Amino acid sequence: MEELKKRILKEAEVGEGDIIRVDMFLNHCMDVALLERIGKALAKRFKGERVDKVLTVEASGIAVACFTALALGVPAVYAKKFQTGYIDPDVYAAEVHSFSMEKSYTIRVSRRYLEPDDRVLLVDDILASGQAILGLLEIVSRAGAEAVGVGVAIEKATKDGGEVLRRMGLRVESLVKVERIEDGHIILGED
Amino acid sequence: MEELKKRILKEAEVGEGDIIRVDMFLNHCMDVALLERIGKALAKRFKGERVDKVLTVEASGIAVACFTALALGVPAVYAKKFQTGYIDPDVYAAEVHSFSMEKSYTIRVSRRYLEPDDRVLLVDDILASGQAILGLLEIVSRAGAEAVGVGVAIEKATKDGGEVLRRMGLRVESLVKVERIEDGHIILGED
Repeated sequence: MEELKKRILKEAEVGEGDIIRVDMFLNHCMDVALLERIGKALAKRFKGERVDKVLTVEASGIAVACFTALALGVPAVYAKKFQTGYIDPDVYAAEVHSFSMEKSYTIRVSRRYLEPDDRVLLVDDILASGQAILGLLEIVSRAGAEAVGVGVAIEKATKDGGEVLRRMGLRVESLVKVERIEDGHIILGED
Repeated sequence: MEELKKRILKEAEVGEGDIIRVDMFLNHCMDVALLERIGKALAKRFKGERVDKVLTVEASGIAVACFTALALGVPAVYAKKFQTGYIDPDVYAAEVHSFSMEKSYTIRVSRRYLEPDDRVLLVDDILASGQAILGLLEIVSRAGAEAVGVGVAIEKATKDGGEVLRRMGLRVESLVKVERIEDGHIILGED
């Protein structure tokens, strides 16, 4: 996705430990017109597949999930990371390890919103080590549902999440791939 | 908003302590086509006002904020409740008390995404005691920016948040008002 490549090269910042900051347009301050186009582009990649639901994890995946689901004409569900407000006690849960936070957390989806015959598209803003997606896959599996594939705006090929998921036989679509960081500069690959 | 009233009367559930569950279409499993119309309806209420940014709190406010911001043609920013992944150390922060959780938490917005001349529309899915909106107001004030008003999908008039905010001189627009709960039944008012 050329537009997203340009925005990354123009605005993204490289922080300590080669983290890539895109919070100026993707996941804190959100350019929602861009996010709408990201959603449409991800939906297009899975055109021809039956998708019943889009599933993501709060909070940074929600915008991408909403716009992808809107383009596909299906509901979006987000797994909860935190116990705030009411949460259904009857949930599918999975443990997710965060390497950046150096801790694990539980993600939960109410059993009411995943059914055994659902074909579920997993989406997120960024795919790095793939831990969050692996947690969502576990939840989809516990529900007896089927994962159609994984769609992300940005894949960090510097981490092995994409490779791990593809080796599991999953279709992984990323709109932009970050190949590597060289002296604080972001080098993008072909998607 | 007639469509939202109908959905509430048809699908919402009343739980312990008269909490209203709308997680089947609004804030866990999301009917994104409905949410898009909610965003358009909120944007329409503030037509004629200059709005530079839409501001909400993660996670349940993000979808409403995205679609309202899209309809207004401005960015959406969400305050972070949790320290996950990278967060700018240079933030505006406010303490928010959650009555339902019986604890307080800190919400944070990077200083880069609120500017002194910004006119900010605060949005959320549900307005009850108004604590989250009061926290956002504090952040807007710390940034030297101006709050245009508050837009929510559902206002629980059984709690005093809307009244408190209006008494402060704020314009509060809610698409549907829950007047009261009678024997487990939801009674809606006129918006």
